[in-house]
Amino acid sequence: MTTFATTHSTGSGASTARPKRIFNFSAGPACMPEEVLAQLQEDIWSVRGSGIGIMEHSHRGPVYDRIIEEAEADCRAVAGIGDTHHVLFLQGGATLQFAMLPLNFLHPGKSADYADTGVWATKAFKEAKLFGKVNVVYDGSKTKYDHTPAPSEATPTDGACYFHYCSNNTIYGTRWPSPPKTKSPLVCDASSEMFGRPYDFAGHAMIYAGAQKNLGPSGVVLVLLRKDFLETQRKDLPLATMLDYRKQAENGSRLNTPNTFGIHVMGLVFKWILKNGGLKAIEQRNAEKAKVLYDAIDGSGGFFKGHSTPECRSHMNVVFRCPSEELDKKFLKEAEALGMDGLKGHRDAGGLRASIYNAFPRKGCEALAQFMSEFKRSFG
Amino acid sequence: MTTFATTHSTGSGASTARPKRIFNFSAGPACMPEEVLAQLQEDIWSVRGSGIGIMEHSHRGPVYDRIIEEAEADCRAVAGIGDTHHVLFLQGGATLQFAMLPLNFLHPGKSADYADTGVWATKAFKEAKLFGKVNVVYDGSKTKYDHTPAPSEATPTDGACYFHYCSNNTIYGTRWPSPPKTKSPLVCDASSEMFGRPYDFAGHAMIYAGAQKNLGPSGVVLVLLRKDFLETQRKDLPLATMLDYRKQAENGSRLNTPNTFGIHVMGLVFKWILKNGGLKAIEQRNAEKAKVLYDAIDGSGGFFKGHSTPECRSHMNVVFRCPSEELDKKFLKEAEALGMDGLKGHRDAGGLRASIYNAFPRKGCEALAQFMSEFKRSFG
Repeated sequence: MTTFATTHSTGSGASTARPKRIFNFSAGPACMPEEVLAQLQEDIWSVRGSGIGIMEHSHRGPVYDRIIEEAEADCRAVAGIGDTHHVLFLQGGATLQFAMLPLNFLHPGKSADYADTGVWATKAFKEAKLFGKVNVVYDGSKTKYDHTPAPSEATPTDGACYFHYCSNNTIYGTRWPSPPKTKSPLVCDASSEMFGRPYDFAGHAMIYAGAQKNLGPSGVVLVLLRKDFLETQRKDLPLATMLDYRKQAENGSRLNTPNTFGIHVMGLVFKWILKNGGLKAIEQRNAEKAKVLYDAIDGSGGFFKGHSTPECRSHMNVVFRCPSEELDKKFLKEAEALGMDGLKGHRDAGGLRASIYNAFPRKGCEALAQFMSEFKRSFG
Repeated sequence: MTTFATTHSTGSGASTARPKRIFNFSAGPACMPEEVLAQLQEDIWSVRGSGIGIMEHSHRGPVYDRIIEEAEADCRAVAGIGDTHHVLFLQGGATLQFAMLPLNFLHPGKSADYADTGVWATKAFKEAKLFGKVNVVYDGSKTKYDHTPAPSEATPTDGACYFHYCSNNTIYGTRWPSPPKTKSPLVCDASSEMFGRPYDFAGHAMIYAGAQKNLGPSGVVLVLLRKDFLETQRKDLPLATMLDYRKQAENGSRLNTPNTFGIHVMGLVFKWILKNGGLKAIEQRNAEKAKVLYDAIDGSGGFFKGHSTPECRSHMNVVFRCPSEELDKKFLKEAEALGMDGLKGHRDAGGLRASIYNAFPRKGCEALAQFMSEFKRSFG
């Protein structure tokens, strides 16, 4: 059997002879666009002809001013949002957002709605419970998180401070086909699919994403925060300065030294998205890539079983399993030997998971589908 | 006049033809070891022969396990600390530490001591005041922060939860010649000189540093936390999970996805320190570099004036000024034309500042000293 590891060709780069890269199905941190990596190889030594590497520039100097301003402008262009929203580049991952959200917006005596569609959604409401009253308006654990709720399954509470949901569930491979309809401000953890499809970004009071799946390296979080929602901020708490969305917004994400490198990488990724046709084109390619794998599952005559119901299938994380745990293990081992890494399912879901974010190449999906077919022939 | 910009030679690297680099006197983010940058150019594409770039590896995979374990072990080797301390890699910069410290350790009904030796020390105690009672045991503003306190100038409070100080003051170019003696647990913000000299790391209850001066890129904070101090943690507050030192320690800095890239860079910097003789050798080189500049100030017949008293002079940030603001501006402009960047003083101190952290090359100090001498000849 041939291995699928390739030397991917890229545009300009700091290096002439590049080591081989393998297909990286990691759920996050995850594979990034090779054009961006090649650019970073140059930028680490000297960025934009400055004679100073990207990590070495003052976050308040003229070179970095342009970098962060462009990153913000390109982010707005990708999302199609204007002056209604702040664009913030914060730290601490989605997990810190789980705390910042209630600390800033869950008022004493009121409550917030949370839809529980998987591990990360659960963590979000558990963190919020530390600081206020939470209504879990949907409990997906009863169906092993195999889908996201239909409108009839989750009834928003009148007068809630906000409604929180996770638009794509990495671990179970489900997504919300479209954002829920609520009267209260809509807040979305989009970490594992941010900018993977066109979405009603402007309609959200807040939408946030840890960068390490679709946007860049870990250690930086993108937050799109609607200004009228920020007006509803709590005033009753002494709030750590770094956890105060208003102060972060007033300082343009430079309240203190931000993750300058991470923001630069995100800026390059935004440019890469725009250059590749924006979110409509990205969505089209993602749908095609996902179809390659779901077709392999559906065409296996029941050998492979997908976790998600068909209508909620994620285009980012394809979660499936073999007929036995033993075969799952064999599958993983053989795939790894063929240069396909990161296919092990999350410990909470078991089985197998192929994460195929924006930057993941279609030929990686084809290679995996081919291997699935061969594996099924051998062991089915 | 010749410019001082050079193509620095390095060891192995991804690139054969490297762009010119200039002398970067930035106070932070700041210049990094070129050997580390060259290694990163390779690692971004594929780290440790894995076929996957450093930013793309799962933080829970075997490759990254080794990277973070080595970073921690090398950090312990550099600091000379053992099992008495946790080594944590957190996010949010020193500014988030300013909040986490009192939220975790400043008990209701008790107080904490803070020595105010400059802008960052001030921010630290102001943040702590949000959450508890603070005694400012030294107020350096009365002497324009031109020194750190002698023992007679700062009297620690009996029974304080801790004593907080900033060992090197970036903006005013001062440092504590040695750590203060206190009965209460000693906590140090060492952001701008961490691992710039041997220090009594083990003697501190907690010592922390934003990475972006001596340790790596911005967006990651190193915290050395003594286990017996962690035992004194407050239990009375609902604390955001990410802000809980105990939970961070229990999860080995991987409570959620940490700044994987930043930690890797720090690991490479720790290896670079060890390879270059450890902190004793680093201190020696830093002292020599600083002497080049302080000699240029002291030998200028009063043309250049240093800000710090001689006994408190920082070896990391050399803060000085010309006889007039107009000459400061001229100096900056001419220095920039010669390939010396980042010499503008902080807005709170004015004048000029040369930041010459561990990675800054001696020849950059010599180039600046030579220019100072020429400038004085022209305008003195």
